[in-house]
Amino acid sequence: MYKLTKIEGGVCASDGFYADGVSAGLKSNNAKDMAFIYSEVECEIAATFTTNKMCAAPIRHFKQKGDFKTNFVLINSKNANAMTGKAGISDIDDVLSTLPKNISNAVMSSTGVIGVRLPKEKIIAGAKLFDLTKREPNAAAEAIMTTDTFSKQIAYKIELEDGSSFHIGAMAKGAGMINPAMATMLCFITTDADVSKAEMQKILDKNILTTFNAASVDGDTSTNDTVMLLSNAKSGAYDATAFSEALHKIMRFLARQMVKDGEGATKLVTYEVSSAKDDTEAEIVAKALSNSLLVKTALYGEDPNWGRIASTVGASGAEADEESLTISFNDVCVYKKGELFFDAEMEKKASEVMKLDEFSIYCDLGIADGAFTAFGCDLGHKYVEINADYRT
Amino acid sequence: MYKLTKIEGGVCASDGFYADGVSAGLKSNNAKDMAFIYSEVECEIAATFTTNKMCAAPIRHFKQKGDFKTNFVLINSKNANAMTGKAGISDIDDVLSTLPKNISNAVMSSTGVIGVRLPKEKIIAGAKLFDLTKREPNAAAEAIMTTDTFSKQIAYKIELEDGSSFHIGAMAKGAGMINPAMATMLCFITTDADVSKAEMQKILDKNILTTFNAASVDGDTSTNDTVMLLSNAKSGAYDATAFSEALHKIMRFLARQMVKDGEGATKLVTYEVSSAKDDTEAEIVAKALSNSLLVKTALYGEDPNWGRIASTVGASGAEADEESLTISFNDVCVYKKGELFFDAEMEKKASEVMKLDEFSIYCDLGIADGAFTAFGCDLGHKYVEINADYRT
Repeated sequence: MYKLTKIEGGVCASDGFYADGVSAGLKSNNAKDMAFIYSEVECEIAATFTTNKMCAAPIRHFKQKGDFKTNFVLINSKNANAMTGKAGISDIDDVLSTLPKNISNAVMSSTGVIGVRLPKEKIIAGAKLFDLTKREPNAAAEAIMTTDTFSKQIAYKIELEDGSSFHIGAMAKGAGMINPAMATMLCFITTDADVSKAEMQKILDKNILTTFNAASVDGDTSTNDTVMLLSNAKSGAYDATAFSEALHKIMRFLARQMVKDGEGATKLVTYEVSSAKDDTEAEIVAKALSNSLLVKTALYGEDPNWGRIASTVGASGAEADEESLTISFNDVCVYKKGELFFDAEMEKKASEVMKLDEFSIYCDLGIADGAFTAFGCDLGHKYVEINADYRT
Repeated sequence: MYKLTKIEGGVCASDGFYADGVSAGLKSNNAKDMAFIYSEVECEIAATFTTNKMCAAPIRHFKQKGDFKTNFVLINSKNANAMTGKAGISDIDDVLSTLPKNISNAVMSSTGVIGVRLPKEKIIAGAKLFDLTKREPNAAAEAIMTTDTFSKQIAYKIELEDGSSFHIGAMAKGAGMINPAMATMLCFITTDADVSKAEMQKILDKNILTTFNAASVDGDTSTNDTVMLLSNAKSGAYDATAFSEALHKIMRFLARQMVKDGEGATKLVTYEVSSAKDDTEAEIVAKALSNSLLVKTALYGEDPNWGRIASTVGASGAEADEESLTISFNDVCVYKKGELFFDAEMEKKASEVMKLDEFSIYCDLGIADGAFTAFGCDLGHKYVEINADYRT
């Protein structure tokens, strides 16, 4: 047995970790735009990156280093250092070479506009403002935001039966370009658990499928997506089941926070697909629903247009039949296996559900026992406003 | 040699075809909502339908009939007769059983809201208003519109070297739910060419890949998509090459008209992808671009954000590399094989291109010789307005 307790502290909740955010003048109005995470001792690293073929310089830089430990992550917002070729890589080397001597194998991570060289001088000057004795997780979480409207952090203390304990803390950013195959999302997780690199990577990979990869804002996959898990083993404690459960809670929470903060989103919708041919087909349907423009605009209009749900299920490519399909908005069943009973009264009830900030759409395909849950949001005028002219 | 001449007349341009549109009170304000196409003699039929698993009753009804000839197509807008189960099929039988005796094997086609039974009595009454001696292609084209803002028709006269000639005429509707795998689009093509059913179907299938299936408004695939080609052979004339070329021109024109009329669209963008690994990968990239929300909103904002183009190419899954990719807006090259030369002056030039109603985005992947051309549009506030509350 073990006990999970939600605690404050974000990426600084784990023993031996420090973090802060500063302004380097990348964003306007002196907003924080650079953050660091520093660990007293070197960390093992597990990481997952974007599948985008145009993956950004920081990710290529990380991968080129091969197997290594680090005690420092430098993060900047406003510039993605993507589509910047070899220059993008050497810009990172130039920045990291200016860091203090007690920093080993520093890692860099970037998010922002694509196709513009890193403002190297500003970033080098910004890094000189870092104070490695600071524990300011809120400032760090704020500094990595782009179009996010709120910062995203969470931490757990995990107490084991033998009296030992460890911590996992995390921060994330992401509000657009969020997609079932990762997204412009950065997530940094720190832990003082005594976990091996291989085990961390395995647990991270497993949990990502039902958390970040189940979240969609607009179906686009970015050049910079990164989930990084750093372990400094300072607690000396570990339990695989407890670690995995806590990590899943953390990743699921942050994934849902990102969808909730989806550009212009007003609703967080959970798509619970069941009775599909298999889990893979359930995932196809759940992601088709969370990405459908017609579904997303109907959500925005709070219009219980279940026909669009049915049509999207049918168009997904998964095995489906109108005679076995059932659709519900929370507990309001709007269509059941070929029966048409959607009248004015039912429309009113379903509309009430759609007015909620968070609700579930259930699709029971009535075929076999495949299931998957995806997270999505609506799409309204604000999304168009934000994205029609993002760079200016 | 042969000569193609664009002519007036839409679906009535071919010898022996009649058409008209009437109001049956399905739409408000006495707008036309029912159309017919009638041929003096029975026609061979070639057809392509939606791949949506929830395919609508009229499509299931057509497929159940097996091999048959017809002289009559009845079309209604406002109600899709989709997700209506067995009742949807018997409603069609009930409607068609009331048609005059000289009509054989009538076909029905519907478009509109999903999940509501056909207003049978209104449609039966509407059909009684049909006058089979009428040649009113404009009225027919208007009656099949839903969210379309203009009707879509075209016709060609094809003159062969031996002095014989035939005609092909067509009408279409479609403005939303338009997607690379067909769309809520109906297209009816009539011809008096003396062409066999098998040959017609073969030419239709080939041409659809580069026309309707290359067009995207919002990436959703409807329950009712139909392209139907009717031949009454009255001209006695035929030439396969000429027929295929004219049919391709007609289908390409209507596909582009549909994208141009995409819900809320202000721009028609042609995505010309070249030098991909093969044609299939070029198609994947072209369709990813035409469906990307981030690209579509950048188009709407007239923001030459080539980074989103690059990111979408990279996310498409096709082989791609930033060192071999070249991106142009018409003749303005904005990115070339790793070189970053996009400055304020170039941004101004690219912005000028984006202000045009129609332009091309060229993506040369620099890998091999695969190519594909897709058609797409922007996504702005009007799309959200139209789709946030379509049913009311």
